[in-house]
Amino acid sequence: MSLFDWHTLSDEVWVRAVKRTLYHKKHRTMRNSAKGKNLGLLFFNSSLRTRTSMELAAHELGAHVTTLNVGQGVWGMEWQPDVKMDAGAAEHIKEAVGVLSRYYDALGVRVFAEFSDYERDKQEQRIKAVIDAATVPIVNLESAFYHPCQALGDAGTLASHFNGRTAGKTFMLTWAYHPKPLPMAVPNSALLTAARLGMNVVVARPEGYALDPDVMNVARSYAAARNASIIEVDDPDAGYENADIVYAKAWGGPMAYTDPEGEAITRAGLKEWRVTAPRMLRTNEAGFMHCLPVRRNVVVDDAVLDHPTSLHLDQAEFRLHAQKAVLELVWGL
Amino acid sequence: MSLFDWHTLSDEVWVRAVKRTLYHKKHRTMRNSAKGKNLGLLFFNSSLRTRTSMELAAHELGAHVTTLNVGQGVWGMEWQPDVKMDAGAAEHIKEAVGVLSRYYDALGVRVFAEFSDYERDKQEQRIKAVIDAATVPIVNLESAFYHPCQALGDAGTLASHFNGRTAGKTFMLTWAYHPKPLPMAVPNSALLTAARLGMNVVVARPEGYALDPDVMNVARSYAAARNASIIEVDDPDAGYENADIVYAKAWGGPMAYTDPEGEAITRAGLKEWRVTAPRMLRTNEAGFMHCLPVRRNVVVDDAVLDHPTSLHLDQAEFRLHAQKAVLELVWGL
Amino acid sequence: MSLFDWHTLSDEVWVRAVKRTLYHKKHRTMRNSAKGKNLGLLFFNSSLRTRTSMELAAHELGAHVTTLNVGQGVWGMEWQPDVKMDAGAAEHIKEAVGVLSRYYDALGVRVFAEFSDYERDKQEQRIKAVIDAATVPIVNLESAFYHPCQALGDAGTLASHFNGRTAGKTFMLTWAYHPKPLPMAVPNSALLTAARLGMNVVVARPEGYALDPDVMNVARSYAAARNASIIEVDDPDAGYENADIVYAKAWGGPMAYTDPEGEAITRAGLKEWRVTAPRMLRTNEAGFMHCLPVRRNVVVDDAVLDHPTSLHLDQAEFRLHAQKAVLELVWGL
Repeated sequence: MSLFDWHTLSDEVWVRAVKRTLYHKKHRTMRNSAKGKNLGLLFFNSSLRTRTSMELAAHELGAHVTTLNVGQGVWGMEWQPDVKMDAGAAEHIKEAVGVLSRYYDALGVRVFAEFSDYERDKQEQRIKAVIDAATVPIVNLESAFYHPCQALGDAGTLASHFNGRTAGKTFMLTWAYHPKPLPMAVPNSALLTAARLGMNVVVARPEGYALDPDVMNVARSYAAARNASIIEVDDPDAGYENADIVYAKAWGGPMAYTDPEGEAITRAGLKEWRVTAPRMLRTNEAGFMHCLPVRRNVVVDDAVLDHPTSLHLDQAEFRLHAQKAVLELVWGL
Repeated sequence: MSLFDWHTLSDEVWVRAVKRTLYHKKHRTMRNSAKGKNLGLLFFNSSLRTRTSMELAAHELGAHVTTLNVGQGVWGMEWQPDVKMDAGAAEHIKEAVGVLSRYYDALGVRVFAEFSDYERDKQEQRIKAVIDAATVPIVNLESAFYHPCQALGDAGTLASHFNGRTAGKTFMLTWAYHPKPLPMAVPNSALLTAARLGMNVVVARPEGYALDPDVMNVARSYAAARNASIIEVDDPDAGYENADIVYAKAWGGPMAYTDPEGEAITRAGLKEWRVTAPRMLRTNEAGFMHCLPVRRNVVVDDAVLDHPTSLHLDQAEFRLHAQKAVLELVWGL
Repeated sequence: MSLFDWHTLSDEVWVRAVKRTLYHKKHRTMRNSAKGKNLGLLFFNSSLRTRTSMELAAHELGAHVTTLNVGQGVWGMEWQPDVKMDAGAAEHIKEAVGVLSRYYDALGVRVFAEFSDYERDKQEQRIKAVIDAATVPIVNLESAFYHPCQALGDAGTLASHFNGRTAGKTFMLTWAYHPKPLPMAVPNSALLTAARLGMNVVVARPEGYALDPDVMNVARSYAAARNASIIEVDDPDAGYENADIVYAKAWGGPMAYTDPEGEAITRAGLKEWRVTAPRMLRTNEAGFMHCLPVRRNVVVDDAVLDHPTSLHLDQAEFRLHAQKAVLELVWGL
């Protein structure tokens, strides 16, 4: 089976994946359960953690891995169906994925938001085109709206940090200033993860940067089923009180699609949205989280990131453990 | 031994390689016959299929593989002998190949046509410089005029498609329009493959796009020895009747060397050279073949490529099986 | 333990590393002593030999390797501490190395001289920032001032060439013209290697291109302890007499930092600093050495490089053997 995103899978699958993640953290599993299997990784965007942790996750389960960076020694690709390919791209995604399906037992694919049409990104046209063209399982390594490997790694980090007792803890997801309008895959995934773990979620973001209402609704349904809450605040100083976790992330939001210039001007006025040491002091000794890469002293101050309560390296490490669980899921190991 | 091209090797070697290709298709061989061996892949041009299938072919025989893309983290290279290297290139191909020969047990090398001097490309100066500088076997991963890995994969595809009875079947190789003047390695190899399999070959190409006469003569000698025919037609609608295979490929031809601007103008008037569904309907339910990457609705219509009779993904898959046979050949496994 | 450079390590460690290098040359060791270990290679600069030989060294000891080229599918990095990251770089070296330390059992890192501040390069701020940020051993794959893997490979080459009797042989290190002002890591390492092997060293370089006095002093202390000599000459025709080894290398020197334009003009007048066949004829049938890549007929003439006495491919091969010894050292195998 493919892993598009956890919210399309049952609680049972999700809970088992979190458990396996914690298992792999405990044992740094090295075994041959995936021996003879080949994993292809296809990156349309840069990666440090995802690539390396996925390569090692597969290797430590006994599988063989190839990593491909599109445009770097690999032909550029066409995504549109029914197109006359007389422009730049030499190869259609249908052929690329069709061919790789003949070689590999699963493909991991990273393809970020296009940022041209909000609905098209929300509908996840690209990762879904990959899944449609494939005859082997696809693992989403971050698409326009979702980043399930980050989600599971973060779930492992949170479960580990709270010794399994995440329910009722307060998870603050805060928007942060960034010189570029970034995609929403990570904040969407962080929100859904925290809600599914039964945490009370505070989403702090400026006016105009609300997360997608449908994603918020999924999170609210998780919260309702777990007697937890989801609230939103729009002041850079609000929301820190009682936070057990502060998760920072920059994103561009819908305005980055409809009015990019206006969004840039708006964003330039929001530089005070930064996680600082004084703000962290008002929390419940919160752990700081960020998916990385992070811009120091822009998104978060050195004093926060270099403090022992920062969990960012743990999060990165949990990617390795989580992705072993992902491979077990997609390959039925 | 190196694999420059099949036409320099005996029928016995060729027939055995085709047999081994079919064997590996049947068994998806995974063994340790090449354990302890290291294969280096050196790409001067882009690749999706060749790189991935060669990596897996080697891995599934137990060998270890490194892939290098020249110019991407690897020093740019000088090809000319006796040159004073005071310009861009930091390293001469002699040193690069000499060094890699100390590390690897064989090298796969892709170096496309230069497109500056027809005779120099025809003489295969670059791949031959590599073979000269090497002290280990070289596998040609597509040079100026030949693509033996594609040839063997295609032979496997054809032998499999016709249950071994390729003799007497009709193989139509048709030129197709493309926005760029492409090299001739694939059409040369497809022509020689079909002729060597005893197929009656129809080469359909516009005036001015004839394949090299020496390559045509080799094909004719294969055909003569097998009581088969090689004919040429120059009309985009001709040649489809009775075809059992339609193999499409764009190429620039000699005019792309002597008069690039004139060739571009000529080519721009040849957009009707495209494999369409109506044309395919006139064949003997022909299988469609293309080496990929292919430009949809420029070289071939969606309706043809997405039809069950298209063999393009089988061809790509056969690259994996064929290259196991190639490694067995060069390493004497 | 990390390998920053040999001169910070004891003679005992150095001698053992040379011995292990010769052992691996003799046996082309393939074993599983590093099985279960993961090695990450992080290149900020191009590489052919270092990358491939390090990958194979690790593989042939049973370890798994990932190679990352920064800027090619990996986020660009910030090096400055305490910086507000609102410009190009998306990730700080602290996070990158911190994260990779969670995945890998050692990291090999190549980061060349910056060429902006001589003292900063001499203080090796970048490789030291990597070592500081890491929680696993770092192997220096060429930093601003040192190239310990080249040094050990060269030591193996020399020990092998002279059957272990390097003491008292004459090692000529000669500056050579090059169209670019290159870093000093290789000449520094070659100088220290020859001196530590008890060779009499002649450093031939034009006025203005003296090696760093502190590096020269370390070499002199090695020489003094071994009853050997270090002398300098500044004439392109001097120093060849009695040489048993001629080691050529281009470098920019301190002037390339303080007066880049002046250095370029000065250098342009030094094209006669080239290793030619007539000059080699005046030596004691010297072996020619170069770390590669080398510019033919600019740094050294074809006649020298293509002569059987040239050791450049042996040097390259010894990188493989040396780096097995390096991995044994840093992993305590």
